[in-house]
Amino acid sequence: MAQIAPSRRVRRTPFSDGVEAAGVKGYTVYNRMLLPTVFRSVTEDYHHLKSAVQVWDVACERQVEVRGPDASRLMQMLTPRDLRGMLPGQCYYVPMVDETGGMLNDPVAVKLAEDRFWISIADSDLLLWVKGIAYGYRLDVLVDEPDVSPLAIQGPKSDELMARVFGDAIKNVRFFRFGWFEFQGRQLAIARSGYSKQGGYEIYVEGGDIGMPLWNALMEAGADLDVHAGCPNLIERIEGGLLSYGNDMNRDNTPHEAGLGKFCSTQTAIGCIGRDALLRVAKDGPNKQIRAIAIDGDIPACDRAWPLLASGKVVGHVTSAAKSPDYNTNVAIGMVRMTHWDAGTELNVRTPAGERRAVVQDNFWI
Amino acid sequence: MAQIAPSRRVRRTPFSDGVEAAGVKGYTVYNRMLLPTVFRSVTEDYHHLKSAVQVWDVACERQVEVRGPDASRLMQMLTPRDLRGMLPGQCYYVPMVDETGGMLNDPVAVKLAEDRFWISIADSDLLLWVKGIAYGYRLDVLVDEPDVSPLAIQGPKSDELMARVFGDAIKNVRFFRFGWFEFQGRQLAIARSGYSKQGGYEIYVEGGDIGMPLWNALMEAGADLDVHAGCPNLIERIEGGLLSYGNDMNRDNTPHEAGLGKFCSTQTAIGCIGRDALLRVAKDGPNKQIRAIAIDGDIPACDRAWPLLASGKVVGHVTSAAKSPDYNTNVAIGMVRMTHWDAGTELNVRTPAGERRAVVQDNFWI
Repeated sequence: MAQIAPSRRVRRTPFSDGVEAAGVKGYTVYNRMLLPTVFRSVTEDYHHLKSAVQVWDVACERQVEVRGPDASRLMQMLTPRDLRGMLPGQCYYVPMVDETGGMLNDPVAVKLAEDRFWISIADSDLLLWVKGIAYGYRLDVLVDEPDVSPLAIQGPKSDELMARVFGDAIKNVRFFRFGWFEFQGRQLAIARSGYSKQGGYEIYVEGGDIGMPLWNALMEAGADLDVHAGCPNLIERIEGGLLSYGNDMNRDNTPHEAGLGKFCSTQTAIGCIGRDALLRVAKDGPNKQIRAIAIDGDIPACDRAWPLLASGKVVGHVTSAAKSPDYNTNVAIGMVRMTHWDAGTELNVRTPAGERRAVVQDNFWI
Repeated sequence: MAQIAPSRRVRRTPFSDGVEAAGVKGYTVYNRMLLPTVFRSVTEDYHHLKSAVQVWDVACERQVEVRGPDASRLMQMLTPRDLRGMLPGQCYYVPMVDETGGMLNDPVAVKLAEDRFWISIADSDLLLWVKGIAYGYRLDVLVDEPDVSPLAIQGPKSDELMARVFGDAIKNVRFFRFGWFEFQGRQLAIARSGYSKQGGYEIYVEGGDIGMPLWNALMEAGADLDVHAGCPNLIERIEGGLLSYGNDMNRDNTPHEAGLGKFCSTQTAIGCIGRDALLRVAKDGPNKQIRAIAIDGDIPACDRAWPLLASGKVVGHVTSAAKSPDYNTNVAIGMVRMTHWDAGTELNVRTPAGERRAVVQDNFWI
């Protein structure tokens, strides 16, 4: 693969200096910002993530701030998940959809106050949609991208590392809740969340100036815990069934196709823009859906959708795949038609390196 | 710099096979799609672009199609440029702004018919803004991303190459006009336009399946013209003052700051969402503006904004820069405060490699 070209348009983050010093070997671009993809090797990073603790520059999870008297109304317009019970201090995973029920993003919403939210976005300029809706409806709300850059601490030793920097109270933060903790005189929202199944936290670093001081403090405090710079790990996130917007689903897909029907309270999510379309989907059910898929043999990097074949007919596509050391197979995520989505169904997958045997799984691996 | 990681999310294009076969050495990501940045070397590509002809994979200039009875109304809502005189067959460079006059994109609009446009976008998900506005205003219009991938033919020998593939009539297409030409039984819109100052065309390739056949036909027809795979060239585009959205201006800037005031007909562009804000700007004038800037000495790649200093005080930022072989200086684009934007003003620029002398120019180089 080729090198990534430097330009201001592909934004650096408050942690880029630390990432470079740690010897980053690969990048992707996510929300027009650099996102590391590998430090030592994807496999070495994978084993380390499962056994120690890593600090991840996920500043590319940009925030869309929604603030003002109409903030709650606007938030409910964006998602089919019922937000009426959401309290300040909670994080909700919220599929966001357009008027046809097509997914525009699958962010985490962070409720800072009754009239103030951050939407921690996956890879699409959701800001433009939120601004367009707010303007079109003349809502009394401010929509902007604040100077907030998430830093994730992931891995089994996360609790220990975080306690050393923020105090033992951090351990009381429950899953998908956040609390306010001090670093160098600044209050930071810290949630128990993150894009791995190994446990950990996401620090919403407000103000780029404290990015490197915080990065360095974590590295120093965790030296004897074998802390290392890391990043979302392709293998581990597929094993855990963590979807990637743009890879595994996009605007063509409904949340139900993405297996996110449980986050769609279409009966009660009054005001959601995509509600009419999703009421229909909820009634009929999707005719294709995300599945865990095991693939035999050697496979190349999955840089395009691979057709899934049954008797030579396309019945779906694999959209993410990687060789798993722990499960001794290639783990994959794909969208499969209902005729062939039952666990145990044997298919062929057409990769650029040739056809391989693929088996639909009943569950993801972790 | 690190390698770019493969993933479906960073989309390949209909021309990626040709780009890889031609030995692409660097990529960037633009609209979540691969955009080549260098083939032989940026300098070698530059000399070749100015003397021969290149075929560019600019599929990342995604199209936003706007179609229906309210298409013209919606288009005028998006831009301060007066579109009343725009005829089918014309292309207009149209800064697009939000309600505060902040630039959301600087695309080329292609008028296919009275009720049908393509917006050929720079690097932001403008689709989401256009959809949001259309939905918020309940406009009778369809907004979508069609399967259209631009392929640019640039360089002094473009006319000759294009005539060989599409016939001599192609030479009659005027600047920023387009005509319909046949390739393998399909009608393609071809405009005289492109992101260089060397002349050429942009082919709006409708249907990814004919991408590689067209690529190969151009390569074969131009063998004796020294045709080569190319890409927007950093040096040449700075010499020519071709702005890059995300590098040289973004949502923080008005079109006037970007030097695009001549495209703002704020008096007559009735319906433009940002009109109120831009009437104020047009009256007062901007207090900072894009300038051509020459920089002395050796400079690194410009991957972040470099502060421009006068007596130690920041008076602007350089946002794009490259060493120019033809002009024997570093050519650069920057935003400079009005107190220091006069041609000939000497400043210092703080690069990561140290301070350099910078001089504001009266014009760009080409």
